[in-house]
Amino acid sequence: MRDTYHEELDALGGRLIEMTRLARHAIARATTALLDADLTAAQEVISGDEDINRLDEEIEASVFDLMARQQPVATDLRTIITALHMSGDLERMGDHAVHIAKIARRRHPDSAIPSELRSIVLEMGHQAELLVIKAGEVVENRDAETALELDSDDDRMDKLRRKLLRRILSPEWKHGVESTMDVTLAGRFYERFGDHAVHVADNLVYMVTGEKPKDFEPEA
Amino acid sequence: MRDTYHEELDALGGRLIEMTRLARHAIARATTALLDADLTAAQEVISGDEDINRLDEEIEASVFDLMARQQPVATDLRTIITALHMSGDLERMGDHAVHIAKIARRRHPDSAIPSELRSIVLEMGHQAELLVIKAGEVVENRDAETALELDSDDDRMDKLRRKLLRRILSPEWKHGVESTMDVTLAGRFYERFGDHAVHVADNLVYMVTGEKPKDFEPEA
Repeated sequence: MRDTYHEELDALGGRLIEMTRLARHAIARATTALLDADLTAAQEVISGDEDINRLDEEIEASVFDLMARQQPVATDLRTIITALHMSGDLERMGDHAVHIAKIARRRHPDSAIPSELRSIVLEMGHQAELLVIKAGEVVENRDAETALELDSDDDRMDKLRRKLLRRILSPEWKHGVESTMDVTLAGRFYERFGDHAVHVADNLVYMVTGEKPKDFEPEA
Repeated sequence: MRDTYHEELDALGGRLIEMTRLARHAIARATTALLDADLTAAQEVISGDEDINRLDEEIEASVFDLMARQQPVATDLRTIITALHMSGDLERMGDHAVHIAKIARRRHPDSAIPSELRSIVLEMGHQAELLVIKAGEVVENRDAETALELDSDDDRMDKLRRKLLRRILSPEWKHGVESTMDVTLAGRFYERFGDHAVHVADNLVYMVTGEKPKDFEPEA
Protein backbone atom coordinates (compact mmCIF):
# COMPACT_ATOMS: atom_id res chain seq x y z
CA MET A 1 0.00 0.00 0.00
CA ARG A 2 2.78 2.41 0.94
CA ASP A 3 4.49 1.64 -2.39
CA THR A 4 1.44 2.44 -4.47
CA TYR A 5 1.26 5.65 -2.49
CA HIS A 6 4.76 6.72 -3.35
CA GLU A 7 4.22 5.67 -6.95
CA GLU A 8 1.21 7.97 -7.03
CA LEU A 9 3.24 10.82 -5.54
CA ASP A 10 5.90 10.26 -8.21
CA ALA A 11 3.23 10.20 -10.90
CA LEU A 12 2.05 13.57 -9.65
CA GLY A 13 5.54 14.98 -10.14
CA GLY A 14 5.75 13.36 -13.58
CA ARG A 15 2.51 15.00 -14.66
CA LEU A 16 3.72 18.41 -13.49
CA ILE A 17 6.93 18.04 -15.48
CA GLU A 18 4.93 16.98 -18.53
CA MET A 19 2.78 20.10 -18.07
CA THR A 20 5.89 22.31 -18.13
CA ARG A 21 6.92 20.62 -21.42
CA LEU A 22 3.52 21.20 -22.98
CA ALA A 23 3.40 24.80 -21.73
CA ARG A 24 6.84 25.41 -23.20
CA HIS A 25 5.80 23.98 -26.55
CA ALA A 26 2.60 26.03 -26.45
CA ILE A 27 4.33 29.36 -25.80
CA ALA A 28 7.01 28.65 -28.44
CA ARG A 29 4.38 27.86 -31.08
CA ALA A 30 2.24 30.80 -30.00
CA THR A 31 5.20 33.12 -30.54
CA THR A 32 5.70 31.65 -34.01
CA ALA A 33 1.99 32.07 -34.72
CA LEU A 34 2.15 35.69 -33.63
CA LEU A 35 5.34 36.71 -35.43
CA ASP A 36 4.86 34.74 -38.64
CA ALA A 37 1.06 34.97 -38.86
CA ASP A 38 1.21 31.17 -38.87
CA LEU A 39 -2.36 29.93 -38.68
CA THR A 40 -1.38 26.27 -38.35
CA ALA A 41 0.76 27.04 -35.32
CA ALA A 42 -2.06 29.08 -33.80
CA GLN A 43 -4.60 26.27 -34.24
CA GLU A 44 -2.15 23.79 -32.80
CA VAL A 45 -1.74 25.84 -29.63
CA ILE A 46 -5.49 26.34 -29.29
CA SER A 47 -6.43 22.69 -29.73
CA GLY A 48 -3.38 21.44 -27.82
CA ASP A 49 -4.52 23.23 -24.67
CA GLU A 50 -6.85 20.29 -24.00
CA ASP A 51 -3.82 18.13 -23.18
CA ILE A 52 -2.66 20.57 -20.52
CA ASN A 53 -6.18 20.82 -19.09
CA ARG A 54 -6.46 17.03 -18.97
CA LEU A 55 -3.23 16.74 -16.98
CA ASP A 56 -4.51 19.38 -14.56
CA GLU A 57 -7.69 17.36 -14.07
CA GLU A 58 -5.71 14.16 -13.59
CA ILE A 59 -3.60 15.86 -10.93
CA GLU A 60 -6.70 17.10 -9.14
CA ALA A 61 -8.26 13.62 -9.24
CA SER A 62 -5.04 12.07 -8.01
CA VAL A 63 -4.80 14.59 -5.14
CA PHE A 64 -8.33 13.68 -4.06
CA ASP A 65 -7.51 10.03 -4.26
CA LEU A 66 -4.27 10.37 -2.29
CA MET A 67 -5.97 12.45 0.37
CA ALA A 68 -8.91 10.14 0.76
CA ARG A 69 -7.02 6.86 0.77
CA GLN A 70 -3.74 7.79 2.41
CA GLN A 71 -4.59 10.71 4.63
CA PRO A 72 -1.13 12.18 4.33
CA VAL A 73 0.27 14.52 6.95
CA ALA A 74 3.13 17.01 7.28
CA THR A 75 5.56 16.94 4.35
CA ASP A 76 3.47 14.67 2.15
CA LEU A 77 0.42 16.82 2.70
CA ARG A 78 2.41 19.93 1.79
CA THR A 79 3.71 18.20 -1.33
CA ILE A 80 0.23 17.29 -2.47
CA ILE A 81 -1.36 20.68 -1.85
CA THR A 82 1.56 22.43 -3.47
CA ALA A 83 1.31 20.18 -6.51
CA LEU A 84 -2.29 21.28 -6.85
CA HIS A 85 -1.23 24.94 -6.91
CA MET A 86 1.55 24.29 -9.44
CA SER A 87 -0.87 22.47 -11.67
CA GLY A 88 -3.21 25.47 -11.56
CA ASP A 89 -0.38 27.80 -12.55
CA LEU A 90 0.73 25.60 -15.43
CA GLU A 91 -2.82 25.30 -16.65
CA ARG A 92 -3.06 29.10 -16.72
CA MET A 93 0.24 29.30 -18.62
CA GLY A 94 -1.33 27.15 -21.31
CA ASP A 95 -4.29 29.54 -21.38
CA HIS A 96 -2.00 32.53 -21.88
CA ALA A 97 -0.34 30.78 -24.83
CA VAL A 98 -3.86 30.22 -26.22
CA HIS A 99 -4.70 33.92 -25.78
CA ILE A 100 -1.59 34.84 -27.76
CA ALA A 101 -2.43 32.28 -30.47
CA LYS A 102 -5.92 33.75 -30.75
CA ILE A 103 -4.52 37.24 -31.36
CA ALA A 104 -2.48 35.72 -34.21
CA ARG A 105 -5.52 33.90 -35.59
CA ARG A 106 -7.69 37.01 -35.47
CA ARG A 107 -5.17 39.04 -37.46
CA HIS A 108 -4.28 36.32 -39.96
CA PRO A 109 -3.14 36.67 -42.76
CA ASP A 110 -1.60 39.85 -41.33
CA SER A 111 0.86 39.67 -38.47
CA ALA A 112 -0.36 41.30 -35.26
CA ILE A 113 3.17 42.50 -34.51
CA PRO A 114 4.60 45.43 -36.52
CA SER A 115 8.03 44.65 -37.88
CA GLU A 116 9.88 47.08 -35.61
CA LEU A 117 8.60 45.22 -32.53
CA ARG A 118 9.39 41.70 -33.75
CA SER A 119 12.71 41.45 -31.96
CA ILE A 120 11.24 42.49 -28.60
CA VAL A 121 8.36 40.03 -28.89
CA LEU A 122 10.71 37.29 -30.02
CA GLU A 123 12.82 37.92 -26.94
CA MET A 124 9.73 37.83 -24.72
CA GLY A 125 8.88 34.47 -26.25
CA HIS A 126 12.38 33.18 -25.57
CA GLN A 127 12.30 34.49 -22.02
CA ALA A 128 8.95 32.76 -21.48
CA GLU A 129 10.45 29.50 -22.73
CA LEU A 130 13.49 29.91 -20.51
CA LEU A 131 11.28 30.47 -17.46
CA VAL A 132 9.08 27.45 -18.04
CA ILE A 133 12.04 25.19 -18.86
CA LYS A 134 13.72 26.28 -15.64
CA ALA A 135 10.51 25.78 -13.67
CA GLY A 136 10.34 22.24 -15.05
CA GLU A 137 13.93 21.57 -14.04
CA VAL A 138 13.52 22.81 -10.49
CA VAL A 139 10.39 20.69 -10.09
CA GLU A 140 12.15 17.65 -11.53
CA ASN A 141 15.19 18.08 -9.29
CA ARG A 142 13.33 19.52 -6.31
CA ASP A 143 15.96 22.26 -6.51
CA ALA A 144 14.89 25.05 -4.14
CA GLU A 145 18.11 27.00 -4.63
CA THR A 146 17.75 27.36 -8.40
CA ALA A 147 14.03 27.97 -7.93
CA LEU A 148 14.85 31.22 -6.16
CA GLU A 149 16.55 32.50 -9.33
CA LEU A 150 13.32 32.61 -11.33
CA ASP A 151 12.18 35.80 -9.69
CA SER A 152 15.12 37.76 -11.09
CA ASP A 153 14.92 35.86 -14.41
CA ASP A 154 11.41 37.22 -14.61
CA ASP A 155 12.68 40.80 -14.14
CA ARG A 156 14.02 40.50 -17.67
CA MET A 157 10.49 39.75 -18.90
CA ASP A 158 9.10 42.75 -17.01
CA LYS A 159 11.79 44.95 -18.57
CA LEU A 160 10.91 43.69 -22.03
CA ARG A 161 7.26 44.44 -21.45
CA ARG A 162 8.07 47.99 -20.32
CA LYS A 163 10.23 48.41 -23.42
CA LEU A 164 7.31 47.25 -25.56
CA LEU A 165 4.94 49.73 -23.92
CA ARG A 166 7.43 52.58 -24.28
CA ARG A 167 7.61 51.85 -28.00
CA ILE A 168 3.84 51.96 -28.32
CA LEU A 169 3.70 55.22 -26.41
CA SER A 170 6.52 56.89 -28.35
CA PRO A 171 5.74 59.57 -30.94
CA GLU A 172 7.16 57.23 -33.61
CA TRP A 173 4.33 54.77 -33.11
CA LYS A 174 2.23 55.10 -36.25
CA HIS A 175 0.16 51.93 -36.16
CA GLY A 176 -3.56 51.83 -35.70
CA VAL A 177 -5.78 51.10 -32.78
CA GLU A 178 -6.01 47.40 -33.54
CA SER A 179 -2.24 46.99 -33.38
CA THR A 180 -2.10 48.98 -30.17
CA MET A 181 -4.66 46.67 -28.60
CA ASP A 182 -3.02 43.49 -29.85
CA VAL A 183 0.46 44.47 -28.71
CA THR A 184 -0.84 45.67 -25.33
CA LEU A 185 -2.61 42.38 -24.66
CA ALA A 186 0.15 40.17 -26.06
CA GLY A 187 2.62 41.95 -23.78
CA ARG A 188 0.41 41.31 -20.82
CA PHE A 189 -0.02 37.61 -21.68
CA TYR A 190 3.74 37.06 -21.86
CA GLU A 191 4.21 38.86 -18.57
CA ARG A 192 1.51 36.74 -16.90
CA PHE A 193 3.02 33.57 -18.34
CA GLY A 194 6.29 34.54 -16.65
CA ASP A 195 4.57 35.37 -13.35
CA HIS A 196 3.00 31.92 -13.23
CA ALA A 197 6.37 30.27 -13.92
CA VAL A 198 7.84 32.18 -10.96
CA HIS A 199 4.90 31.03 -8.88
CA VAL A 200 5.55 27.39 -9.78
CA ALA A 201 9.14 27.85 -8.60
CA ASP A 202 8.00 29.62 -5.41
CA ASN A 203 5.70 26.72 -4.67
CA LEU A 204 8.58 24.31 -5.21
CA VAL A 205 10.59 26.24 -2.61
CA TYR A 206 7.69 25.94 -0.21
CA MET A 207 7.26 22.26 -1.01
CA VAL A 208 10.89 21.48 -0.30
CA THR A 209 11.67 23.83 2.58
CA GLY A 210 8.29 24.53 4.19
CA GLU A 211 9.20 28.22 3.98
CA LYS A 212 7.46 30.61 1.63
CA PRO A 213 9.89 32.74 -0.41
CA LYS A 214 9.94 36.49 0.21
CA ASP A 215 7.20 38.31 -1.70
CA PHE A 216 5.37 35.03 -2.17
CA GLU A 217 1.97 35.91 -3.59
CA PRO A 218 -1.00 33.74 -2.67
CA GLU A 219 -1.73 33.33 -6.38
CA ALA A 220 0.36 34.43 -9.32
CA MET B 1 -13.05 17.16 18.60
CA ARG B 2 -15.70 16.69 15.91
CA ASP B 3 -17.25 19.99 17.02
CA THR B 4 -14.07 21.97 16.64
CA TYR B 5 -13.78 20.36 13.22
CA HIS B 6 -17.18 21.55 12.07
CA GLU B 7 -16.51 24.96 13.57
CA GLU B 8 -13.37 25.15 11.46
CA LEU B 9 -15.30 24.13 8.36
CA ASP B 10 -17.85 26.85 9.10
CA ALA B 11 -15.08 29.36 9.63
CA LEU B 12 -13.75 28.44 6.20
CA GLY B 13 -17.13 29.31 4.68
CA GLY B 14 -17.25 32.54 6.67
CA ARG B 15 -13.87 33.61 5.35
CA LEU B 16 -14.93 32.93 1.77
CA ILE B 17 -18.05 35.05 2.22
CA GLU B 18 -15.96 37.82 3.74
CA MET B 19 -13.65 37.63 0.71
CA THR B 20 -16.63 38.12 -1.63
CA ARG B 21 -17.58 41.24 0.38
CA LEU B 22 -14.08 42.65 0.18
CA ALA B 23 -13.81 41.84 -3.53
CA ARG B 24 -17.12 43.57 -4.13
CA HIS B 25 -16.00 46.65 -2.25
CA ALA B 26 -12.70 46.62 -4.13
CA ILE B 27 -14.25 46.48 -7.60
CA ALA B 28 -16.83 49.16 -6.71
CA ARG B 29 -14.12 51.51 -5.47
CA ALA B 30 -11.85 50.68 -8.41
CA THR B 31 -14.64 51.66 -10.79
CA THR B 32 -15.05 54.96 -8.92
CA ALA B 33 -11.31 55.51 -9.07
CA LEU B 34 -11.30 54.86 -12.81
CA LEU B 35 -14.32 56.94 -13.76
CA ASP B 36 -13.78 59.87 -11.40
CA ALA B 37 -9.98 59.89 -11.38
CA ASP B 38 -10.36 59.46 -7.63
CA LEU B 39 -6.89 58.91 -6.24
CA THR B 40 -8.10 58.21 -2.69
CA ALA B 41 -10.34 55.42 -3.94
CA ALA B 42 -7.50 53.99 -6.01
CA GLN B 43 -5.10 53.94 -3.04
CA GLU B 44 -7.77 52.36 -0.87
CA VAL B 45 -8.20 49.49 -3.33
CA ILE B 46 -4.46 49.00 -3.66
CA SER B 47 -3.72 48.95 0.06
CA GLY B 48 -6.94 47.08 0.90
CA ASP B 49 -5.85 44.10 -1.19
CA GLU B 50 -3.76 42.96 1.76
CA ASP B 51 -6.92 42.05 3.64
CA ILE B 52 -8.07 39.78 0.83
CA ASN B 53 -4.64 38.20 0.61
CA ARG B 54 -4.58 37.60 4.35
CA LEU B 55 -7.92 35.78 4.22
CA ASP B 56 -6.61 33.63 1.38
CA GLU B 57 -3.59 32.72 3.48
CA GLU B 58 -5.78 31.97 6.49
CA ILE B 59 -7.91 29.66 4.37
CA GLU B 60 -4.85 27.86 3.10
CA ALA B 61 -3.49 27.45 6.64
CA SER B 62 -6.86 26.23 7.85
CA VAL B 63 -7.08 23.70 5.00
CA PHE B 64 -3.69 22.32 5.96
CA ASP B 65 -4.71 22.13 9.55
CA LEU B 66 -8.01 20.41 8.81
CA MET B 67 -6.35 17.91 6.51
CA ALA B 68 -3.57 17.09 8.91
CA ARG B 69 -5.64 16.79 12.05
CA GLN B 70 -8.95 15.48 10.77
CA GLN B 71 -8.03 13.58 7.63
CA PRO B 72 -11.39 14.26 6.03
CA VAL B 73 -12.77 12.01 3.31
CA ALA B 74 -15.49 12.14 0.65
CA THR B 75 -17.77 15.18 0.96
CA ASP B 76 -15.71 16.97 3.58
CA LEU B 77 -12.58 16.50 1.56
CA ARG B 78 -14.33 17.88 -1.52
CA THR B 79 -15.56 20.86 0.50
CA ILE B 80 -12.10 21.68 1.72
CA ILE B 81 -10.33 21.36 -1.63
CA THR B 82 -13.06 23.35 -3.33
CA ALA B 83 -12.79 26.10 -0.71
CA LEU B 84 -9.11 26.35 -1.57
CA HIS B 85 -9.95 26.91 -5.24
CA MET B 86 -12.62 29.49 -4.42
CA SER B 87 -10.20 31.35 -2.23
CA GLY B 88 -7.70 31.46 -5.08
CA ASP B 89 -10.33 32.88 -7.43
CA LEU B 90 -11.42 35.54 -4.94
CA GLU B 91 -7.84 36.51 -4.31
CA ARG B 92 -7.39 37.01 -8.07
CA MET B 93 -10.55 39.11 -8.20
CA GLY B 94 -8.97 41.43 -5.67
CA ASP B 95 -5.88 41.61 -7.87
CA HIS B 96 -7.95 42.59 -10.89
CA ALA B 97 -9.55 45.41 -8.88
CA VAL B 98 -6.01 46.53 -7.98
CA HIS B 99 -4.97 46.46 -11.65
CA ILE B 100 -7.93 48.72 -12.48
CA ALA B 101 -7.09 51.06 -9.58
CA LYS B 102 -3.51 51.29 -10.81
CA ILE B 103 -4.67 52.39 -14.26
CA ALA B 104 -6.65 55.16 -12.52
CA ARG B 105 -3.65 56.15 -10.39
CA ARG B 106 -1.32 56.26 -13.38
CA ARG B 107 -3.61 58.62 -15.27
CA HIS B 108 -4.52 60.83 -12.32
CA PRO B 109 -5.50 63.72 -12.40
CA ASP B 110 -6.93 62.77 -15.80
CA SER B 111 -9.53 60.06 -16.09
CA ALA B 112 -8.38 57.01 -18.03
CA ILE B 113 -11.86 56.60 -19.50
CA PRO B 114 -13.00 59.02 -22.22
CA SER B 115 -16.41 60.48 -21.47
CA GLU B 116 -18.22 58.62 -24.24
CA LEU B 117 -17.21 55.27 -22.72
CA ARG B 118 -18.15 56.11 -19.14
CA SER B 119 -21.58 54.50 -19.27
CA ILE B 120 -20.22 51.21 -20.63
CA VAL B 121 -17.47 51.04 -18.01
CA LEU B 122 -19.93 51.96 -15.26
CA GLU B 123 -22.15 49.12 -16.40
CA MET B 124 -19.19 46.71 -16.41
CA GLY B 125 -18.45 47.79 -12.84
CA HIS B 126 -22.05 47.16 -11.84
CA GLN B 127 -22.09 43.79 -13.57
CA ALA B 128 -18.88 42.86 -11.74
CA GLU B 129 -20.50 43.80 -8.43
CA LEU B 130 -23.62 41.83 -9.27
CA LEU B 131 -21.53 38.74 -10.08
CA VAL B 132 -19.49 38.83 -6.90
CA ILE B 133 -22.53 39.53 -4.72
CA LYS B 134 -24.31 36.58 -6.29
CA ALA B 135 -21.25 34.38 -5.87
CA GLY B 136 -21.23 35.31 -2.18
CA GLU B 137 -24.90 34.44 -1.84
CA VAL B 138 -24.60 31.04 -3.47
CA VAL B 139 -21.62 30.21 -1.26
CA GLU B 140 -23.48 31.38 1.84
CA ASN B 141 -26.62 29.38 0.98
CA ARG B 142 -24.82 26.50 -0.72
CA ASP B 143 -27.26 27.17 -3.54
CA ALA B 144 -26.17 25.10 -6.52
CA GLU B 145 -29.21 26.01 -8.58
CA THR B 146 -28.65 29.77 -8.46
CA ALA B 147 -24.92 29.16 -8.91
CA LEU B 148 -25.63 27.84 -12.40
CA GLU B 149 -27.09 31.23 -13.37
CA LEU B 150 -23.76 33.04 -13.07
CA ASP B 151 -22.52 31.72 -16.36
CA SER B 152 -25.28 33.52 -18.29
CA ASP B 153 -25.00 36.57 -16.00
CA ASP B 154 -21.42 36.73 -17.14
CA ASP B 155 -22.50 36.75 -20.80
CA ARG B 156 -23.66 40.29 -20.14
CA MET B 157 -20.13 41.22 -19.08
CA ASP B 158 -18.67 39.63 -22.19
CA LYS B 159 -21.13 41.58 -24.34
CA LEU B 160 -20.15 44.82 -22.61
CA ARG B 161 -16.51 44.13 -23.24
CA ARG B 162 -17.16 43.46 -26.92
CA LYS B 163 -19.12 46.70 -27.09
CA LEU B 164 -16.18 48.52 -25.51
CA LEU B 165 -13.75 47.06 -28.04
CA ARG B 166 -16.05 47.90 -30.96
CA ARG B 167 -16.08 51.50 -29.80
CA ILE B 168 -12.30 51.62 -29.67
CA LEU B 169 -12.06 50.11 -33.13
CA SER B 170 -14.68 52.40 -34.69
CA PRO B 171 -13.61 55.25 -37.00
CA GLU B 172 -15.02 57.69 -34.43
CA TRP B 173 -12.35 56.73 -31.88
CA LYS B 174 -10.09 59.75 -31.72
CA HIS B 175 -8.22 59.18 -28.49
CA GLY B 176 -4.55 58.49 -28.25
CA VAL B 177 -2.51 55.37 -27.77
CA GLU B 178 -2.47 55.67 -24.00
CA SER B 179 -6.27 55.69 -23.81
CA THR B 180 -6.46 52.75 -26.17
CA MET B 181 -4.12 50.77 -23.94
CA ASP B 182 -5.87 51.74 -20.73
CA VAL B 183 -9.34 50.92 -22.02
CA THR B 184 -8.15 47.64 -23.56
CA LEU B 185 -6.62 46.49 -20.29
CA ALA B 186 -9.43 47.76 -18.06
CA GLY B 187 -11.90 45.87 -20.26
CA ARG B 188 -9.90 42.72 -19.84
CA PHE B 189 -9.63 43.10 -16.05
CA TYR B 190 -13.40 43.44 -15.67
CA GLU B 191 -13.93 40.43 -17.91
CA ARG B 192 -11.47 38.36 -15.86
CA PHE B 193 -13.07 39.49 -12.62
CA GLY B 194 -16.37 38.13 -13.96
CA ASP B 195 -14.77 34.86 -15.09
CA HIS B 196 -13.43 34.24 -11.61
CA ALA B 197 -16.85 34.92 -10.07
CA VAL B 198 -18.34 32.30 -12.39
CA HIS B 199 -15.59 29.95 -11.35
CA VAL B 200 -16.41 30.43 -7.67
CA ALA B 201 -20.02 29.52 -8.48
CA ASP B 202 -18.93 26.50 -10.55
CA ASN B 203 -16.87 25.30 -7.64
CA LEU B 204 -19.85 25.71 -5.34
CA VAL B 205 -21.87 23.47 -7.67
CA TYR B 206 -19.13 20.89 -7.52
CA MET B 207 -18.87 21.23 -3.74
CA VAL B 208 -22.58 20.63 -3.26
CA THR B 209 -23.36 18.10 -5.98
CA GLY B 210 -20.05 16.39 -6.69
CA GLU B 211 -20.70 17.09 -10.38
CA LYS B 212 -18.72 19.61 -12.37
CA PRO B 213 -20.91 22.04 -14.36
CA LYS B 214 -20.76 21.88 -18.17
CA ASP B 215 -17.80 23.81 -19.59
CA PHE B 216 -16.15 23.79 -16.17
CA GLU B 217 -12.64 25.10 -16.67
CA PRO B 218 -9.87 23.75 -14.48
CA GLU B 219 -8.96 27.35 -13.58
CA ALA B 220 -10.82 30.51 -14.43
